[in-house]
Order: sequence, then C-alpha cells, then structure tokens
Amino acid sequence: MAGNDRTPTATPGGPSIILVAPQLGENIGAAARVMFNFGLRDLRLVRPRDGWPNPKAVGMASGADTILDAVWPFDTTAAAVLEIQHLYAATARHRDMVKHVLTPRAAVREMREKQTRGESCAILFGAERAGLNNDDVALCDSIVRVPVNPAFASLNLAQAVAIIAYEWFAAGDQAPAVELALGDARPASRAELIGLFEHLERELDSHNFFRPPERRPSMVRSLRNMILRSRLTDQDARTLRGIIGTLVKGR
Amino acid sequence: MAGNDRTPTATPGGPSIILVAPQLGENIGAAARVMFNFGLRDLRLVRPRDGWPNPKAVGMASGADTILDAVWPFDTTAAAVLEIQHLYAATARHRDMVKHVLTPRAAVREMREKQTRGESCAILFGAERAGLNNDDVALCDSIVRVPVNPAFASLNLAQAVAIIAYEWFAAGDQAPAVELALGDARPASRAELIGLFEHLERELDSHNFFRPPERRPSMVRSLRNMILRSRLTDQDARTLRGIIGTLVKGR
Repeated sequence: MAGNDRTPTATPGGPSIILVAPQLGENIGAAARVMFNFGLRDLRLVRPRDGWPNPKAVGMASGADTILDAVWPFDTTAAAVLEIQHLYAATARHRDMVKHVLTPRAAVREMREKQTRGESCAILFGAERAGLNNDDVALCDSIVRVPVNPAFASLNLAQAVAIIAYEWFAAGDQAPAVELALGDARPASRAELIGLFEHLERELDSHNFFRPPERRPSMVRSLRNMILRSRLTDQDARTLRGIIGTLVKGR
Repeated sequence: MAGNDRTPTATPGGPSIILVAPQLGENIGAAARVMFNFGLRDLRLVRPRDGWPNPKAVGMASGADTILDAVWPFDTTAAAVLEIQHLYAATARHRDMVKHVLTPRAAVREMREKQTRGESCAILFGAERAGLNNDDVALCDSIVRVPVNPAFASLNLAQAVAIIAYEWFAAGDQAPAVELALGDARPASRAELIGLFEHLERELDSHNFFRPPERRPSMVRSLRNMILRSRLTDQDARTLRGIIGTLVKGR
C-alpha cells in the first residue's frame, strides 16, 4: 500500500499534518513554517504535484528546515495514515455525509485528550483548488471546520494549517489573557502614588488651579483616577514628579 | 500629518488592519484574502515598500478585490489611525515598555465589547523583517501577542493577520463545538435500532454464533454498544438490515 518502506510514527505532543495532493511548493513551505511556529513537527505529503523535494517549499519555510527535512511523500492517503488512531479531515465544504463536525478549538481539545492517553492523531488537508475528495473524508473519524465568512469561504491551504496549528498551541499556552508587561520596572507603591498626588495638588494649589474652590474635591478625585488608570511604575512616579518640578521653575 | 486627504473611517463590525511598511505585495494580498475570509473589511497600508497598487497583492488576494480596492497608502502611522479610538500593536517581540499585553482571544473579546459601544479599533502589524518600531508600539494602547513556539517565533505577516482575524470571527461564530452533520438523514429511532439488534441477534442465534451460551448476554451488550456508538441514521439501520439479509442468503 505504501509507496515507500519507512513507517510513519506520530510525533508525541501534536497532531501530524497531512497534505493530500498539494499543488504549490510555496504552500507546503508556508505550512511547514507555521507548524514550527506552533510546535507541530510531523508533516506528511501525499502525491505532491511537483514532486519532492521542492525548492519553492524551502524558500517559503524560512528556516523551518527541520520540518521539511523529515518529509517524504506517500502514494496514497491510506499509506500516510497507517499507524494513526484518530484521523480528522479539515474541510470547509458541507458534505453529504453523516459525520461529526468540530470547530478547530473543540478538535484540538479532543486531540490533546487523546494524545495524553498516548493515542496518535492526524489531520488531512486537501489540495488548494479542490480540497479533499469524499473518499479521503470517509477515511476520517471527524471533520474539522474552520468558521469562515460564508461569502468568501476559500481559505489558503497554509492559512488553514495555521489556524489549526495555532489553536493546538494556544490550548496549551499558559500566558495570561491580559497582563501588564513590566520589564524591570515594578508597580508604584501607594506611598509613591500619594507622594505624587500631593506634590501635584500642592503645586496646583499654589498656582490657583482649582477654581471655583468648591470644585476642588471632585477635580482632585478625577486627577487621581486619571493617574491611577496609567498603572504607574515607581520610575513613572519619579518621572512625573520631575516634570512637575521642572514646569514650576519657569523658563 | 496625513499624506492624503481622505479621512479613514472605521468599518463597523471589525477592527481595521494596518500594515506598516509591508515589503511584499504577496503578503498584502494574502492578508486581504484572509481578512475577507474572516469578515474584516478595512485594510490600511503605511508606506508599502513597492508602492500601491501592487499587482502581486492582487494575485495573492484570490478574489478579495473588494478589500484591496478600498486600500490607499498613508505616509505615516499616525495619519492612518486618526479616528481610531483603541489601537493595538501586534508584536511577538518583548519590548522594554510598560504596556498591557493581551492574547489574541482576549484582544478580540475586548474589541468586540468596544465596538458594541460604537468605538473604533485597529491593529498595527509591522514589516516582515523588522516588525513594528518602538515609536509605533508606543502609539498603541496595548500589545497583542500571538503565542508561539519560542524556538521559532517569527510568524509570516499574513499568518499573523490570519490568527487575529480568525479569532475575531470565531468569537462571533455560533457553530456548535461538536455537531453530528446529518444532511437529509435523521437519527434512527429506538424502534429502528431495536429492530436491527433483534434481527442481527436472531440470525446470529440461528448460526450458533454465541458460544459458549453463557457469554451470550455480555456479547449482545457489546454488539449493541458498538452499533450505538455509530449514531445510526434511519437509512443506516435499513442498510445494515439489508446487509444481514444478504449475508444469510449464502452465495
């Protein structure tokens, strides 16, 4: 069945990406690059149109050579998936098939569960123009469907790989959803903030800024809120006090 | 400040995508295509290296002409963002800046909230080789950082646009995470399933399949479970009964 005698083995830690009859070397290279960006390692090709290796793939891979070097082509889809236990078809087209359809996010969650149990997963992607044929889809357990604008649903092949690879990586990413990057700085303490507030308010008082005087309390609160929304660092607080000191000196 | 006198207006329903000093027309076209795939419409360019319009962009846009036709270049980043209220910098590099850093998912959630209130959002993407410069980043409220493999963090420009555009679209997508696509079929009723079970078990009894007889109950349960896992349609149940009928006829 296989067109070569190397036995494919699933990479632990991520699904294999299988491109069936890809046409453009550029897309193979771009897929390899984005796989590496998102921590996937095992790329398999079935009947690449322009043969293999393909220099256009190398050009677009931009250094993801470690992915391309391990690629070899298969003659049939079945030969490329022999040891795979869970097989997904990435396809946007609605098929007249009774089959589970998953979002990329749900699919990668399922794959991570299966791989945690030591089970192998792979995703088939079809050719640029025609996509997967129905026989290849019928070989798969489930369909992964990237949600797209129905008025313009044709995703570039490498972009489709990118979305699913990204979802796979993001599902394991520990980065907080929102974080204030501080570098070497540290958040200002309340003492530093109150020191800044009182410095500014003292100078504004001496310049007769708060008019009419009965509005002073609400103006002070607005200023303090505005400053606090900046989430000042210790250095920021010192810088602002320096600015106040400079401005009051006159020219 | 602006290099032209057209006033940019934010597209309702999605952030504007602003490419600062993009080098390759192919990447501009690929970005336009994937924007349209994911329902974004407003692409802006700041100093595209090879001028504008660019035939290589049209080639890669694969029909997303409606996006490209509305593009015009700006001389400065500031000119491209004049009416924007919330500005994000897409950058993977860690900067020595005190700034909020968001995942793409958190960023699009925030943008959708702001746009629901009628506020405009845009995302800056830097050039292929160098990314955004620090002055452009300092013009932005927040950084959007796509989580990537730290050993190979350089995302293709159009792939970076793809990830954020996909997240934006997926956040509004109503598709169920997992769904059994049925087409014109309907799930088999219990009556149809029990009819199938009893048909199969009757034929297996008459062929003396269940041996030793005391194992019959557990073997029947296993068979029924195996069949139920297929989530048969009415047509599937009829097909299986037809297969049983055919097989028992002999050659």
